[in-house]
Amino acid sequence: MTDSYTKTPKTKLRRAHNRGTYDKDVVHAIIDAGLLCHVGYVIDGQPFVTPTIHWREGERLYWHGSAASQALKAQKAGIPVCVTISHLDGLVLARSGLHHSVNYRSVMAFGTAEVVEGREAKEHHLDGLMERIVPGRKDQVRPNTMQEVKGTTVLGMTLDEVVAKVRDGGVVDDEPDYDLDVWAGVLPITQEVGKPIPDPRLKKGIRVPANLKKFKIG
Amino acid sequence: MTDSYTKTPKTKLRRAHNRGTYDKDVVHAIIDAGLLCHVGYVIDGQPFVTPTIHWREGERLYWHGSAASQALKAQKAGIPVCVTISHLDGLVLARSGLHHSVNYRSVMAFGTAEVVEGREAKEHHLDGLMERIVPGRKDQVRPNTMQEVKGTTVLGMTLDEVVAKVRDGGVVDDEPDYDLDVWAGVLPITQEVGKPIPDPRLKKGIRVPANLKKFKIG
Repeated sequence: MTDSYTKTPKTKLRRAHNRGTYDKDVVHAIIDAGLLCHVGYVIDGQPFVTPTIHWREGERLYWHGSAASQALKAQKAGIPVCVTISHLDGLVLARSGLHHSVNYRSVMAFGTAEVVEGREAKEHHLDGLMERIVPGRKDQVRPNTMQEVKGTTVLGMTLDEVVAKVRDGGVVDDEPDYDLDVWAGVLPITQEVGKPIPDPRLKKGIRVPANLKKFKIG
Repeated sequence: MTDSYTKTPKTKLRRAHNRGTYDKDVVHAIIDAGLLCHVGYVIDGQPFVTPTIHWREGERLYWHGSAASQALKAQKAGIPVCVTISHLDGLVLARSGLHHSVNYRSVMAFGTAEVVEGREAKEHHLDGLMERIVPGRKDQVRPNTMQEVKGTTVLGMTLDEVVAKVRDGGVVDDEPDYDLDVWAGVLPITQEVGKPIPDPRLKKGIRVPANLKKFKIG
């Protein structure tokens, strides 16, 4: 197994090559750091971009939804998809308008979605979703019923044609502009998790479990 | 002018109708609350989803990039696009796996991108971008050169075929599950802006301007 994805015409960067990488560890870290992906697919020539929760198991990327979902029905027909995961990490404020930028991490993954068939396989992957979001929670909740599993579609695709783009660090200005009396720097942006808000109908005496107290995204 | 976008086959929700809205004020607020959109477009039947900064002026949505960008070159050919803007607001942790959910706000806008032509119009819209991100900053930085404006492509589309989806509030469990000894509730998620990090090459004596100190996303 190699450490990098193979560059293809779709994933080859034409510009800003220094921002691109095919390194699997970098790609995996960007995928795992986010809860939300954007799935692009085409119906009758029209692009659709649907936000959804994703999770990764090795070199497979998964997402799911109601079996009645039009988006999932279209995707499971084996049409090409592009799944993009992006993190906005900061605003880069330069001394000229043009050199303003953003710090970000993003992954674009091209492939074809496949339906996970069979109750056992579906349950395995839905457990994977739960474990990925809140480790330990799957054993704390009521198990799925057969009907619930039946009503859920799980889609997966292989990470194969993938590229990551990352911009980090500080301001890059034109050399003469460093003399200008302009404030320049970075405004960092992060995603934060607040304190758990208990359901008003929570049974008395039930406290926030330890795995939720230490919850972090990714 | 009406207060709502007209429902079309592309924007009609087949499921979870209670989460959908065509209300212009709601749509505008979701668009303006985010810095990052995901633009979906199709080249030779293959969907691409590119994250980029967007801004809105009335009923027009704009994004931009290098004139050399392959993505922008494709989009400016007048092909259909789908621009999606999403905010993840929380994890909804229910008493069963199936009723786990996320709180979110999202907008899908369908249309065709048009190129903004002419230096004056481009500068006007690039000023709009700067004003939208950091009000007041456009007058604090070096003005654009003719070459910089020339090297930038600005794309715009009309907000016409648009739908917003919102899930907020708390846990909705199956009635019998409320008796379970399971913690349930919401983990709120927000995007936060940290303290400005000055460029190491900042000229002595230049302080963070007031408009940056009170910076908020959207």
